Amino acid sequence: MTYCVGLTLDRGMVFMSDTRTNAGVDNISTFRKMRIWEQPGERSITLMSAGNLATTQAVVSLLEERAKQVADRDPGIMACESMFEVATMVGDTLREVIRDNTEHGQRAESTFHATLLLGGQLGDGQMRLFLIYPEGNFIEASPDTPFFQIGETKYGRPILLRAYDPEMSFEDAIKLLLVSFDSTIKANLSVAPPLDVHVYEKDSLKTGKVFRIDADNDYFHDISDGWGVALREAFASLPQFDFDKSLSKREASFRHKDEG
Amino acid sequence: MTYCVGLTLDRGMVFMSDTRTNAGVDNISTFRKMRIWEQPGERSITLMSAGNLATTQAVVSLLEERAKQVADRDPGIMACESMFEVATMVGDTLREVIRDNTEHGQRAESTFHATLLLGGQLGDGQMRLFLIYPEGNFIEASPDTPFFQIGETKYGRPILLRAYDPEMSFEDAIKLLLVSFDSTIKANLSVAPPLDVHVYEKDSLKTGKVFRIDADNDYFHDISDGWGVALREAFASLPQFDFDKSLSKREASFRHKDEG
Repeated sequence: MTYCVGLTLDRGMVFMSDTRTNAGVDNISTFRKMRIWEQPGERSITLMSAGNLATTQAVVSLLEERAKQVADRDPGIMACESMFEVATMVGDTLREVIRDNTEHGQRAESTFHATLLLGGQLGDGQMRLFLIYPEGNFIEASPDTPFFQIGETKYGRPILLRAYDPEMSFEDAIKLLLVSFDSTIKANLSVAPPLDVHVYEKDSLKTGKVFRIDADNDYFHDISDGWGVALREAFASLPQFDFDKSLSKREASFRHKDEG
Repeated sequence: MTYCVGLTLDRGMVFMSDTRTNAGVDNISTFRKMRIWEQPGERSITLMSAGNLATTQAVVSLLEERAKQVADRDPGIMACESMFEVATMVGDTLREVIRDNTEHGQRAESTFHATLLLGGQLGDGQMRLFLIYPEGNFIEASPDTPFFQIGETKYGRPILLRAYDPEMSFEDAIKLLLVSFDSTIKANLSVAPPLDVHVYEKDSLKTGKVFRIDADNDYFHDISDGWGVALREAFASLPQFDFDKSLSKREASFRHKDEG
């Protein structure tokens, strides 16, 4: 499994991905799941992937190849003229790789599945964030759904739903993502640091801050420990349940046996 | 889907289950997923179920039938002499129902799957909590794994991992479960109130407090709203990320491009 999140903010976008891949629990490796294409002043495009590693690596390799061959029949990622065109092209490439694997293999299609997060900005277009399905089609983030998660998404979702704010600073967004990743890492062996981060500044049209947070990063430890304490304090601050006062008469007198 | 949790505490056990069942998103109903068998002074046994509703209802009906026929060849739930025997018998019944459905139907076995949580105390035995798999085998809770969840377990797991304490009061345990259920309900349409609760007091050998928390329960609303505020405050209390200070030299200088 994997965990990747792409957040759109008023001031830009923040991408974070883990690096663990596993085939079973006894074959664990570290792989980068984030790839950035850049042409300063013209475009910055970030791609993150979850799913079959062979599939996602093949997709990235194909995209790389095509990006280099400017004269090729198919326009590469560096030649596309809009983020929509990039998403369509990446989706087509993903579908193509999955189809090829399935035709020649003997296993179910789902084995080769992968899901992608694609975000960036290009020319005078808007910043856009897409979630691309194994079928090659995609959905786009909007003010109602301002972030996407792929991979092991559930553990880290509640805090994103509660604390996300489009006006938040990049620093707060990174903090929020670290809390979300920490909850996921604590609950699931298949997600682990180091964590790759790309902070894209709106309208900059170039790669922003790119860095990697290691397992022994002090700040990540502070967040992880601090969040445990803060959660317990938050929990303690909630009103106490009272058997007599917290239930209506009907609720308190509900008996399972009577309905049996 | 469904969400059920069984918690073992020093002073007893707390069971909570939601009541939503759905076939797709346009066929939603309310069903009780908690069943209690009691023989005051002798035994109190609670069963919660997640999975195919026809399967779990058939299991409960079979258990009910057998509990009534004391003279029957197979000992019923009221005649078993230990919680282990109850778990074995319930597991056998579950496997039997799934097998029967699969033999006569044309669909995959997984369609009829169900998972059960069984907890209680019997005679002079200890309180015990079991998670029973569709295959009929089961695992038991222990000090290392003092609670089990079934159904839609991921959203509500981080807070359980962080705030559970075996010494906590029943009131705190109910509060904790409500926070866990609230996170799940907020994230997933297939889990919804009313919530059924059974609080079993250790060594009481009788049904404890049984009640149902409705969607319009004031305390549940206070917890839900309060938790959103408390989470945001907890998040704000964590140290701020700093691009210059929070990263080691190596982490900050990590460039994706260099590895491409």
